[in-house]
Amino acid sequence: MSTAPAAHATTRSAEEQARFERGLREMFEQHISFNQLLGLKIVSLQPGDVRGRFAMKPELVGHFTYGRLHGGVISSVLDAMAGLALMVAIAERHPQESAAQVMHRFARMGTIDLRIDFLRQGLGQHFDASAKVTRLGGRIGSAQMALHNDGGELIATGAASFVVS
Amino acid sequence: MSTAPAAHATTRSAEEQARFERGLREMFEQHISFNQLLGLKIVSLQPGDVRGRFAMKPELVGHFTYGRLHGGVISSVLDAMAGLALMVAIAERHPQESAAQVMHRFARMGTIDLRIDFLRQGLGQHFDASAKVTRLGGRIGSAQMALHNDGGELIATGAASFVVS
Amino acid sequence: MSTAPAAHATTRSAEEQARFERGLREMFEQHISFNQLLGLKIVSLQPGDVRGRFAMKPELVGHFTYGRLHGGVISSVLDAMAGLALMVAIAERHPQESAAQVMHRFARMGTIDLRIDFLRQGLGQHFDASAKVTRLGGRIGSAQMALHNDGGELIATGAASFVVS
Amino acid sequence: MSTAPAAHATTRSAEEQARFERGLREMFEQHISFNQLLGLKIVSLQPGDVRGRFAMKPELVGHFTYGRLHGGVISSVLDAMAGLALMVAIAERHPQESAAQVMHRFARMGTIDLRIDFLRQGLGQHFDASAKVTRLGGRIGSAQMALHNDGGELIATGAASFVVS
Repeated sequence: MSTAPAAHATTRSAEEQARFERGLREMFEQHISFNQLLGLKIVSLQPGDVRGRFAMKPELVGHFTYGRLHGGVISSVLDAMAGLALMVAIAERHPQESAAQVMHRFARMGTIDLRIDFLRQGLGQHFDASAKVTRLGGRIGSAQMALHNDGGELIATGAASFVVS
Repeated sequence: MSTAPAAHATTRSAEEQARFERGLREMFEQHISFNQLLGLKIVSLQPGDVRGRFAMKPELVGHFTYGRLHGGVISSVLDAMAGLALMVAIAERHPQESAAQVMHRFARMGTIDLRIDFLRQGLGQHFDASAKVTRLGGRIGSAQMALHNDGGELIATGAASFVVS
Repeated sequence: MSTAPAAHATTRSAEEQARFERGLREMFEQHISFNQLLGLKIVSLQPGDVRGRFAMKPELVGHFTYGRLHGGVISSVLDAMAGLALMVAIAERHPQESAAQVMHRFARMGTIDLRIDFLRQGLGQHFDASAKVTRLGGRIGSAQMALHNDGGELIATGAASFVVS
Repeated sequence: MSTAPAAHATTRSAEEQARFERGLREMFEQHISFNQLLGLKIVSLQPGDVRGRFAMKPELVGHFTYGRLHGGVISSVLDAMAGLALMVAIAERHPQESAAQVMHRFARMGTIDLRIDFLRQGLGQHFDASAKVTRLGGRIGSAQMALHNDGGELIATGAASFVVS
C-alpha cells in the first residue's frame, strides 16, 4: 500500500490497465461466439461491480408462444458474468502483471459447476447481469450472480465455482 | 395393467400415444427456438430412457481457440432434456389423458433450479444427452442428466427441479 | 395498506404477531432436535432480516485436528435459516391468518434442494447465519443464505428451493 | 498393469492397502466427530462401489412430530460419502504411495460446494448411502451421491465438487 517510488514497479500502469480492460472486453464480447450471439455487452469492469447487459431478441426466446427468455440464455449469461468478475478480481490480485499475463490466466480458467435459480419469467426489453466474487483462492474462485430485467425485477440468481490459477 | 376391454377407457391408445410423441418431438425440436439453434434431436422417448443428440458446429463453441462446447450449450441441453424426461414420465403417469391434455401440462411446467457439473472439455463430433426422472410428485419433479461425447466420455452431469402439474 | 378500521379484520394483531413469533422461535429452537443440538438461536425475525447465531463447540467440529466447523453443520444451519426466512415471508404475505394458521403452513413446507458453497474454513467462537427470500410464489419459495464468523469473514453461502403452500 | 517383479515397487502391497483401509475407516468412523454422532459406518471401500450405512435414531430426526431424517443429516452423510469415494479413487490413482502418504492427501482435501436434492421423506429403520466419482483431476474431484432407505426408496441425491491434491 506504499506510494513510494519502489512500489511503482509492482503496480500495473494506467495504460497497461486500459490495455487489460480492452483485451478483456474484446475477448468477452467478440471472441466468445456465444456471447456475441447473445449480444452480451460489458457495462462495468470495476472490481466489486462487474455488470453486463443484453437486449431481448427473438433468438433468445424459449417457446415462441410465451416470449420469455430461454433458460439456457440465462445460464450462459450468468456463467459468463461469473468468469468475468473473477478475471477482474484476478487482475486486481496481481497488479504487477501485464495485461497479456493476466489474459493468459483466462485461458486456464474454467467453470467447475454452476447453479441457477429461475425465479421469475424472463420478460423485458433488456436484461442486466451482475456478478460478485465471494472467494478468490489460489486454485478455486467462487461467485454469485444475478439477472434483473429492465423493470428491476430479479429474474434469476446463480452460484458458480471456477478453477483459477 | 389389464388388457381387458374395460381398461381401454383409461389407457391412451397407441394412436394417441403416437400423437403425443409426435407433438412432443415437434414442440421440442422446432418450437423451442434454442433447441432448433442447437440442432438438438430426440433419439429416444421411452420412459426411463430419454435421450437426445446434437452435432458439434462452430456456433456452439465457447472460445474459438479451443474448439470446446460452450458451457451455456451444455446447460441448455441438459435443462431441456430434464424437461423432456419429465414430460414422458407425466404422460406415463396420466395414461387416460389425450396427447393434447398432456401437452397442455408442458405449458405449465418450468425449471425451478439447475445444477451443472462441467467434468471434461466438450470435445467431439457429436454429443449424447440423457435424463432420468428421480422424483415425480404432484407439484415437483426432479431429474438427473448426463452428457457424453462420441467417444463415450462423460462431459457433464446435471440435476434439476421443476414445477409440474 | 389502509390503516382504516376496516383493515383491522385482515391484519394480524400485535398480540397475534407476537404469538406467531413465540411459536416460530419455540418450534425452531426447541422442537427441531438438530437445531437444539447445534444450539442455533434466532437473533432477528424481521421480514428481510432473518438471522440466527450459534457458538462453536467440540461436537460441531469436523476433524478434531483442525478445529473447523463440520460441513454438515454449515449445510444444516443454512437450510434451517432459509426455511425460517420463508416462514417469516409467508406470515407477512398472509396477515389475516392467525399464528396457528401460519404455523400450520410450516408443517407442509419442505426443502426441495439445496446448494452450499464452502468458501473459507469455519473457524471462530461463534457464527452468524442469515437468509433472504428471493421468491415467494404460491407453490415455490427460494432463498439465499450466508454464514459469517465472529470476525466478519464469509464462511459459506447457499441457495435453496422450498415447496410452500 | 504388468505383474512382473519390477511392478512391485510401484504397487501398494496388500498389507499396505489393508493399512490404508483401516486408517480410512478409523478416520472416517471415529475421528470425524459428526460421523460418529450419526453412527455412520463404512460398508464397502471398493473403487466404484463406496457405501456406508447408518441407523435411524431420535437425534437424527428433524421435527419430532414427523419422525423423518433431518435434512442436515442427509447433507452431512452425502458430503462425507463423496469425500470417502474420492479418497478411495485417489488411493487407486497413486498405487505407489504408502497408506500414510494417501491419508496425508485427505488432510488437504475439502468440499468446494454441494448440491442435495431431497426427493422423498427420510423414513426408515436404516439408510444406505453411496457415492461414485465422476471426475478425478489433479486439482478437482467430483462425485454423485445417493441415499436409499431400507425399503430401497431413493430418499436423496447429491453432487459435490472437491479440491484434491
